[in-house]
This record gives sequence, C-alpha cells and structure tokens, in this order.
Amino acid sequence: MTARNPTACLLVIGNEVLSGRTQDANIRFIATKLGEIGMPLREVRVIPDVPETIINTVNEVRTKFDHVFTTGGIGPTHDDITSECIAAAFGVPWEAHPAAWERMERAFKPGEFNAARQRMATMPRGAGLIDNAISVAPGFTMGNVHVMAGVPRIMQSMMDTLLPTLPHGIPIVSRAVHAFGMPEGLIAAGLEEIQNRYPDLDVGSYPFYRPSGNGVTIVAKGPDAYAAEAAISEVTALFSNLERTPIQGEPAAGTAAG
Amino acid sequence: MTARNPTACLLVIGNEVLSGRTQDANIRFIATKLGEIGMPLREVRVIPDVPETIINTVNEVRTKFDHVFTTGGIGPTHDDITSECIAAAFGVPWEAHPAAWERMERAFKPGEFNAARQRMATMPRGAGLIDNAISVAPGFTMGNVHVMAGVPRIMQSMMDTLLPTLPHGIPIVSRAVHAFGMPEGLIAAGLEEIQNRYPDLDVGSYPFYRPSGNGVTIVAKGPDAYAAEAAISEVTALFSNLERTPIQGEPAAGTAAG
Repeated sequence: MTARNPTACLLVIGNEVLSGRTQDANIRFIATKLGEIGMPLREVRVIPDVPETIINTVNEVRTKFDHVFTTGGIGPTHDDITSECIAAAFGVPWEAHPAAWERMERAFKPGEFNAARQRMATMPRGAGLIDNAISVAPGFTMGNVHVMAGVPRIMQSMMDTLLPTLPHGIPIVSRAVHAFGMPEGLIAAGLEEIQNRYPDLDVGSYPFYRPSGNGVTIVAKGPDAYAAEAAISEVTALFSNLERTPIQGEPAAGTAAG
Repeated sequence: MTARNPTACLLVIGNEVLSGRTQDANIRFIATKLGEIGMPLREVRVIPDVPETIINTVNEVRTKFDHVFTTGGIGPTHDDITSECIAAAFGVPWEAHPAAWERMERAFKPGEFNAARQRMATMPRGAGLIDNAISVAPGFTMGNVHVMAGVPRIMQSMMDTLLPTLPHGIPIVSRAVHAFGMPEGLIAAGLEEIQNRYPDLDVGSYPFYRPSGNGVTIVAKGPDAYAAEAAISEVTALFSNLERTPIQGEPAAGTAAG
C-alpha cells in the first residue's frame, strides 16, 4: 500500500522505557503526525543508552527507511549520549554548533553555561537545528535523521517545527465501525473477502473489552478515503447480516485494547 | 552490568501501534516483569503485519537475544499472521496442534469451530502451549520465542504462566530520589562522578514537569540493592549541597515525562 509514500522509522533511546520505569508517551503522537503527512511509520525500536547499539542501529535504519526520528538522550547528563553517537554513526566530528552555542550561552547567567550544558550545544558537524518553544536547547537534523528530546512536550514542539520541512506523501485516512457482542471468529471469513477486494487498504480487526461490553472494531486505513468508506460500509453490512448493530467510528474513549 | 543475566527482546507485532490508532499498553508490563526475574529487556521492536518483516525480524533477534517475546497477531482474522510467520522463521510446518485443537473444538458449539478459529489451534510443529485464564486460545513457545496475544489482559495472563518456566537471573532493583527546582545542568558533573564510582549500576537522570512543579528524579538500577542505596544516598547529598530538598523515591503518580 502507498508504495510511493516516504517511510519512517522511530528510535526511542533510553533505558527508562526498557526497564519499565517509564510508560512510553511518544510513539503514538509521532505515529499519528507522520500518518497525517503521508509518511507512514514502518518500525519503532526502543534501544538502551549503549553507544555501540545506538550507532549500529542508526546506521542500519537510516539506509533502510527514508526518514529516521529519534527521541531521548540529548540532555546534559552522562546518560545523554545520543548526539555523539549520531556523529559517530555519520563519521563526522562532534563539535560546538555555533548558532546553538550562542543561543544557549545567552540564555544562562554568566558562569552557568557549564560543561554539562555545553554538551547540549555540541552536535555532529553539518547538523541543522530543530527549534522548540519550550526549551532553549534545540534538537537537530543530520542527513535523514531527526534527533529530538524525550520529554513529550519538548518533542511535540520539535515535531511541530519539523513537520512542514519534511516531504509529504498521500495522507493516510482511516474509517472504522464497531459492534458489541461480535466475536472475531464469526466475521473472519467475510472480513478477509473485503480485505481482498480492497488491496490498497489495511483492514484491521481489533477486539475490545470494556465495562460497557465486549466487541470488535474494524478499521480500514489507506490513502483513498472513498475506498476506506466503501470497505467500512461492506463491514457494516456484514455486522447487520450477523444480527449485530453496527456503530460507525471507534468505540467511545477508554483503554485501547490492542 | 549483569553480564551473566539472560537477555530479552520484545516484538510488538501489529499495524495498530505503528499507525497511532492504539496506545501501547504492553511494553511497560513486560519490561517490569522481566526486570523482576533478572532477564532485562534489551530491545523492543514494533513491526507491521508484513510476513517478510516478521520472519526476518524474528530470525535476527532470536539469535541475538536469549529470549524473544512477541505480542499480537494470533487471533482468527486475516491480519493475524504471527503464528505462520514463526513457523516460516523456524523452517517447520504450520499444522494443527493436537492439544490446542482438542481444547478449542470442545469450547465451541458444534459447527462453530470454523476455519478462522481453527487457525488459532494451528501452530509451528514442536510448539509448546502457553495457557491463559481469559481465553481458550493459547499462546505458544517455539525454541526461545514466546508468542503471546496482543490484548493486554490475555497477554498478562500468558506472562503469569510463562514467568516461572523461564531462567531467572539476578533481579534488577531500583532506588530513586527526586528534588523540585533542580536543573539537570547543575548536577550533571556530580552525577557522572557517582556513576563512575558505581559501574555496575545504571544511574539515570529524568527531568519531570508536573502541575506541582518541575524537577529531576535520579534512579539507580542494578543487581545490588546495597550499591543502589549507596549511590542514591550520594545523590541525596548532592541535592542537599545545592540547597534543594531531596525526597526519597519517585515523585507521586502523574504522567511520566521521559
């Protein structure tokens, strides 16, 4: 599907997600924004703060996908090593970025732009800055790799800066219908036929378990809104034929249940 | 750190996380449980429902890590393709699993154990079942790959079944201290010295942004609780020397902020 759309990969860098300390709060935001500009996210990797792992992973995915986004590891502390690893991956010096340095030096009181903070103005040679509205420390783009903060509201502001500068593909649109009391095992055959009739769509089946009841949501995604609507109206008929009440859209808010 | 502990990798299989439709609700649970048995999670990959991607990824990570866990793609619908991809990755037939088949056939009314549901009793030859308390359909273990459902409460029940059967390493314990009004840039140098004095620990620095105030949490993780406590008491002194009030443990519940 959408073979001509640019592809994206996200690297979530940091021990805190792998240890279970931190619930990831970035994947869904980035996935949604990239879908909207027609650059579907094709893979996410969560990797630890280990230089060899970061360097090898960046070099693998930057050739495999059109664009790579990273979150985490660009702060001032010893566990923030993303920036120097990107320099190593590209084989370029890691050095003061004049514009970032000047801006950060100005933001601190005399004497407070210390060695730790200077690290945040040190980047791979050739990097372009990604500004954000929250913090004076910028992210950066090196080649097709976009390096962002891990703190969600800073990352979100960096994505706002970045998105207009990226190539746009055909936006991915989505239509959905759901029904309560509808076991997946009874619609599987009919659903597969619908998927086969719409090869340019991804037709997904997602059971849900809610206090209000159990059921299934069918989602059709793809570049063609007309096709997505047509597929979902066929699913709607499938539900009705099995004597379940089709309800357009996703179920009301609640815990998503995969 | 903990070089002798077995290592784990998690594959989250499914378009719904990559498209942004679904907020992942499994990574943190699995990461925490594996930390508790001393099998630290070293990498997570979120990959789409594409056979070639699933097969190649499984074959890459099952040689790289001691144990691989997968979630998603073992239901009855056309987009559930994990099971046959695991068979292809191991180069074995994908065939009826006698025990799973018998159990599922018994669970349905005559005539309702249809072709779609039979897929859930079809597994790579040689697979061992992973039972769960929620659904009649089991997960399975093939070699060092543990294949689980994507629905969180079914996955959690499968993890409960699986954990006692896995090799246990030295459990990873964690101690933390936090302070409000403490910029990371002022503690970075002292923190690095503490990390260097405790090479068997991971000392992580995590800024937080809360309605109650901003600050930073320092977490020390490792196999040695005594070392983690000693490192955190050094961080506590560092905070006090900088005239911030150290508060033991993580900040009170709220959105984790990277």
